[in-house]
Amino acid sequence: MSKTNVIVAQSGGPTVAINASLAGVIAAATKSQEYETVYGSLNGILGILEDRILNLSDKVKKMPTFIDTLKVTPAMYLGSCRYKLPDYEDDDATYAFIFHQFKKYNIGAFFYIGGNDSMDTVSKLSSYGARIGSDIRIIGIPKTIDNDLLITDHTPGFGSAAKYVASSILEIAHDTYIYAVKSVTIIEIMGRDAGWLTAASALARNAYNSAPHLIYFPEVPFSKEQFLEDVKNELKTRNNVIVAVSEGIRDENGNYFSASKPTADQFGHAQLSGTGKCLEYFIKESIPVKCRSIELNVLQRCAAHISSLTDIEESFSLGQHAVTCALEGQTQCMLTLNRISNNPYTIKIETADIREIANEAKSIPREWINKAGNDIEPELFEYLSPLIMGEPSITYEKGIPVYLPVTHLKPEL
Amino acid sequence: MSKTNVIVAQSGGPTVAINASLAGVIAAATKSQEYETVYGSLNGILGILEDRILNLSDKVKKMPTFIDTLKVTPAMYLGSCRYKLPDYEDDDATYAFIFHQFKKYNIGAFFYIGGNDSMDTVSKLSSYGARIGSDIRIIGIPKTIDNDLLITDHTPGFGSAAKYVASSILEIAHDTYIYAVKSVTIIEIMGRDAGWLTAASALARNAYNSAPHLIYFPEVPFSKEQFLEDVKNELKTRNNVIVAVSEGIRDENGNYFSASKPTADQFGHAQLSGTGKCLEYFIKESIPVKCRSIELNVLQRCAAHISSLTDIEESFSLGQHAVTCALEGQTQCMLTLNRISNNPYTIKIETADIREIANEAKSIPREWINKAGNDIEPELFEYLSPLIMGEPSITYEKGIPVYLPVTHLKPEL
Repeated sequence: MSKTNVIVAQSGGPTVAINASLAGVIAAATKSQEYETVYGSLNGILGILEDRILNLSDKVKKMPTFIDTLKVTPAMYLGSCRYKLPDYEDDDATYAFIFHQFKKYNIGAFFYIGGNDSMDTVSKLSSYGARIGSDIRIIGIPKTIDNDLLITDHTPGFGSAAKYVASSILEIAHDTYIYAVKSVTIIEIMGRDAGWLTAASALARNAYNSAPHLIYFPEVPFSKEQFLEDVKNELKTRNNVIVAVSEGIRDENGNYFSASKPTADQFGHAQLSGTGKCLEYFIKESIPVKCRSIELNVLQRCAAHISSLTDIEESFSLGQHAVTCALEGQTQCMLTLNRISNNPYTIKIETADIREIANEAKSIPREWINKAGNDIEPELFEYLSPLIMGEPSITYEKGIPVYLPVTHLKPEL
Repeated sequence: MSKTNVIVAQSGGPTVAINASLAGVIAAATKSQEYETVYGSLNGILGILEDRILNLSDKVKKMPTFIDTLKVTPAMYLGSCRYKLPDYEDDDATYAFIFHQFKKYNIGAFFYIGGNDSMDTVSKLSSYGARIGSDIRIIGIPKTIDNDLLITDHTPGFGSAAKYVASSILEIAHDTYIYAVKSVTIIEIMGRDAGWLTAASALARNAYNSAPHLIYFPEVPFSKEQFLEDVKNELKTRNNVIVAVSEGIRDENGNYFSASKPTADQFGHAQLSGTGKCLEYFIKESIPVKCRSIELNVLQRCAAHISSLTDIEESFSLGQHAVTCALEGQTQCMLTLNRISNNPYTIKIETADIREIANEAKSIPREWINKAGNDIEPELFEYLSPLIMGEPSITYEKGIPVYLPVTHLKPEL
């Protein structure tokens, strides 16, 4: 059998672990006997459509530290996109062109690293491939800080975001506890539809810190009155109340609580901001106490200097395993993490049919949230704990972390 | 000469290095032959007034890792306060009580670690002490992330905040660069009256990253029109423009640009928020481009997991040196850092008369900011660079950093 090449791309919102999966693909494919060159498509599927293709095998040859530095670099080394493929029943020209490009680069396998929307692309492309009888393997590698993909136990990128959230909340607790005056601190955490990352705030708790004292999730309808009651109760027993709140909380009618009006992106997801600010206003109107809200913002998904070693290594393994799957002839699938046991923490990498996954979100099971809807149950703590373990070694130069640049940058940027 | 004890307290806003100075005081005083017990006053000078005094020598005896963990713990181990001493000409009862407490605990030296407002306390107390002929040494140890204290080359806590700002901006740049669409990202940085920390954003620049592309300081009057012009110009040559802005920017009449109305704290300082949000609105009404603002918020001053080793070690040395100064008979002074050379970076610890320091702020010299008022000059880069060097070793347990609790916490918190 003559050798083929592989192509890999990244898409959707950034995480700290998405380059680790890329590094895993590159490492396994360059080591394999069956694949010749590893190509990278710049800005997701757009790079294939616009012929912006990078030779990644060359990079590995030229830079001995390439794989190791790539593993800990945040966001997407190959750039990203938010491009939705049309339905091929309506318009198959785009599909025909993509497969034309695959042929031109002698592609044997295409790996797409991304979230829900990217898996939609994998699903459509592989389904089209099957229809035209293509033997190109098309495989999805998951990532999202939201941890809301179905089938997989958890998603690459989530553990690092969870570690950032937990560590930041512990540090904010220290900052808050120093004054002997009553205060409420509200910390807004990412997660449009699922409260996994908000739940991870509970990992900040240790022998001396019980913050966050209240946690609010998109999974439970949020009541302003109950929230104020909860805060008043907490203020009875402690000076400094710390509240973790998901950006995606909604009232019983499904309306978001945010200071600014939600608008929708290309995929119809609401774009939120200001939920923490909104709760700050609720407090300020009703309770005479010092109140501050803090939005953890994009650092949740890009603070690579405090990533989880468990997350980085799993993401790398998924990338490697995707290559193995392609070589075994698998296609139209997404790699998944299957938890075998919690103690010791053991996972197994498997694959799932891509059609089972795309465009559905996984919420926290209601029984993992307490009855009052303002804290997690021990089962959720146990689920979350192993995911933030370990610290990768980060190199610093002139006092700042060493990463690889996003490749679509021109030198003058 | 019979042995005396020492007492130490912390006050003002948190930094990552203020416990390193405390650790330095404790380490040097417990090692000295002249001092018996090291006491800590909880919540700054309030602990002395309310007799909430902790035996720190005991802590050292009981916990072998106490000094090392304290060195890297954020905020104040002893808690803080925002208490302003009355003028003793008006009310000397408070002073008399403080010196009564000193006598009760057989205090030979009092060390106060804090910023401008804390040095005001050191100044008043030592001046009162001189008037009543007390031989108790009263010494100030500086700290502030704002770097705006006079006489000292820089302030403990600033280097770590600067490292956090620079590293975060590099990570946000990665997050921003992934999309091939035009965008403006505004990053709001702390610093009420001085732009030192905002200037440190420039340390994020490396071989591939030129962000932040625009920097705005409190030292230069801010013009909305010029800002929009600057952004438009940057958008001509690059896709993703990153702007660093001080929370304290003002127009030519001295009015703050913030989305919320400034109120004043006990010391008359304006409390600001929303400057970044305000600039975001300016962009959104004038330039058709994706725009986001990010407030780095309190993590600038409490993210101990990414502190500067240079900062931590200097802060520790200042604490040790303060004890030496007290033993030498110095009083009514503040420790200072004097830069001997930049290359190699060498500093000398000295002392300055406390009356020269209190209640005045040090701005960036105008000649260290470029003519257009939107970037720094190379001299400022050289000044800042050595301060963020090195990374202290942080221990992690269950995935989060190990710190010492704020001591005024009750176990149930």
